[in-house]
Amino acid sequence: MSRFETPFADRLFRRVRAIDSRLVVGIDPFIERFPEELDRTDPESALIAYGIAVLDAVTPFACAVKPQIAFFEQHGWRGWRALEAVCAAAVERGLPVILDAKRGDIGSTAGAYARGLLGDAPGGLGASVDALTVNPYLGSDSLEPFIARVTEGGRGLFVLARTSNPGGGEFQSHGPEGRPLYLEVARRSESWQGAAIGECGYGSVGLVAGATFPEELARIRETAPRAPLLVPGIGAQGGDPRDIAAAFDDEGLGAVVNSSRGVILAFEKDRERPWQEAVQEAARRTRDAIATAFTSARPGA
Amino acid sequence: MSRFETPFADRLFRRVRAIDSRLVVGIDPFIERFPEELDRTDPESALIAYGIAVLDAVTPFACAVKPQIAFFEQHGWRGWRALEAVCAAAVERGLPVILDAKRGDIGSTAGAYARGLLGDAPGGLGASVDALTVNPYLGSDSLEPFIARVTEGGRGLFVLARTSNPGGGEFQSHGPEGRPLYLEVARRSESWQGAAIGECGYGSVGLVAGATFPEELARIRETAPRAPLLVPGIGAQGGDPRDIAAAFDDEGLGAVVNSSRGVILAFEKDRERPWQEAVQEAARRTRDAIATAFTSARPGA
Repeated sequence: MSRFETPFADRLFRRVRAIDSRLVVGIDPFIERFPEELDRTDPESALIAYGIAVLDAVTPFACAVKPQIAFFEQHGWRGWRALEAVCAAAVERGLPVILDAKRGDIGSTAGAYARGLLGDAPGGLGASVDALTVNPYLGSDSLEPFIARVTEGGRGLFVLARTSNPGGGEFQSHGPEGRPLYLEVARRSESWQGAAIGECGYGSVGLVAGATFPEELARIRETAPRAPLLVPGIGAQGGDPRDIAAAFDDEGLGAVVNSSRGVILAFEKDRERPWQEAVQEAARRTRDAIATAFTSARPGA
Repeated sequence: MSRFETPFADRLFRRVRAIDSRLVVGIDPFIERFPEELDRTDPESALIAYGIAVLDAVTPFACAVKPQIAFFEQHGWRGWRALEAVCAAAVERGLPVILDAKRGDIGSTAGAYARGLLGDAPGGLGASVDALTVNPYLGSDSLEPFIARVTEGGRGLFVLARTSNPGGGEFQSHGPEGRPLYLEVARRSESWQGAAIGECGYGSVGLVAGATFPEELARIRETAPRAPLLVPGIGAQGGDPRDIAAAFDDEGLGAVVNSSRGVILAFEKDRERPWQEAVQEAARRTRDAIATAFTSARPGA
């Protein structure tokens, strides 16, 4: 049975429960900062070797991984081939893949992105992708081909609502009738779920809500109670795991939290041990820090 | 001398004057609709053969070409390699390349996109790209690495303001102080230009403003008088060339107009002649239709 017969939200939250982790490890390969032990002569091989070594290190502690497509794209078609290899390796390890591509376009072009990044073609990148980040600026109709891959293809989406960067509010904070735009996106996401709510109680159209703006995160949670939240911004970006309590429900579900550099570059600050162990230890620590946040959110905790 | 020593806006509008065309031909290769004469056995070779044949057909009548990255990405790394080949072939023919990727991300990720798609690495995709479309949803700070490639790298940008799809207004029409968001983006674009105004009187940070909403297009033109406009939506999307008069200045500069399917699939409706001739004829006709629009905009015309 294809894993895509189970809705994405159920696949994700089953793994969250099974390994008791809400940590998503972002795979942003900064090739110039790779451990010295890795041969960087050929960027494609280096990207694959580093990517797979990170996967092996974090698998016990990550509920999903989030490869950032830009860091592969910048190496051209060879980088793209490395991305395909790393995503396939994640699937082999049972790790759901959230591809961070933030795509957004209209009509037939959105269709081409959906086919390429969430398609079923055997051996294609889409076959290794469980969920995709998308940008809502072009409107609901621009999201339709992606949403079709949720309802028909068992995939997930994370639609940008409130991003974690300082300037994120510049255009995201203004919307119709005085409501901020990020809340309007959150409000609309309820209709994008359609009837596709998983056994876990969540739909598979999620939202991105940065940890760096905890009040806005809480309002997004309130406005879109059925949307899984992908929460970036802890670690290198300065968000504190304690700030994200509101993202979780009483069972500690409903959200997953991304850390990229804080985990995958941990060896830069921890030179006492082999680099993969440093990455693994950072993943373990980050998982635990996130657990503190959701535990404190439970009633009576 | 590298072509990038001349600002993008000057390169673009010099070519507009030289061949008296404001037509940008969008290269959206729908492989399943390729002419029967083309062998589709190997998608990569087919994409390159079709792309180059289209370039050869439209070069006399196109001021630039706009490859749509999604249609290449959907074929994985081989599609990406085909994209690199087609962009390099456009440069060889003297055609400015506007890469339609609508990228948008933050911090180091935006930097990776800017390096990959607008970078100088010899043989890399970026070396064949004159300008890039970007999505502003993540705010001005997310655009900084791209703007740096304008000021330091001689490249151009087209920032999405008002897209041509029916639902584009859903999130783009609401902004601060009751101003629509697309006008806020237009207003901000004036500061993104910095001091980098070309001899043509325009900066190299342009805006996307759909032909399908002529009043909004006119307001964007008014709000951002120094921004080159990229106007999609004529042809297959239903916009009428007569509606876009407001985009042009008195000399018929300031805007370029995209047509994709209307040109590159023209052979589907014109089976009397070889397919490349049908494409060329459609490019000529579309160029002329656009000329009518800007001529009617001239005072006293």
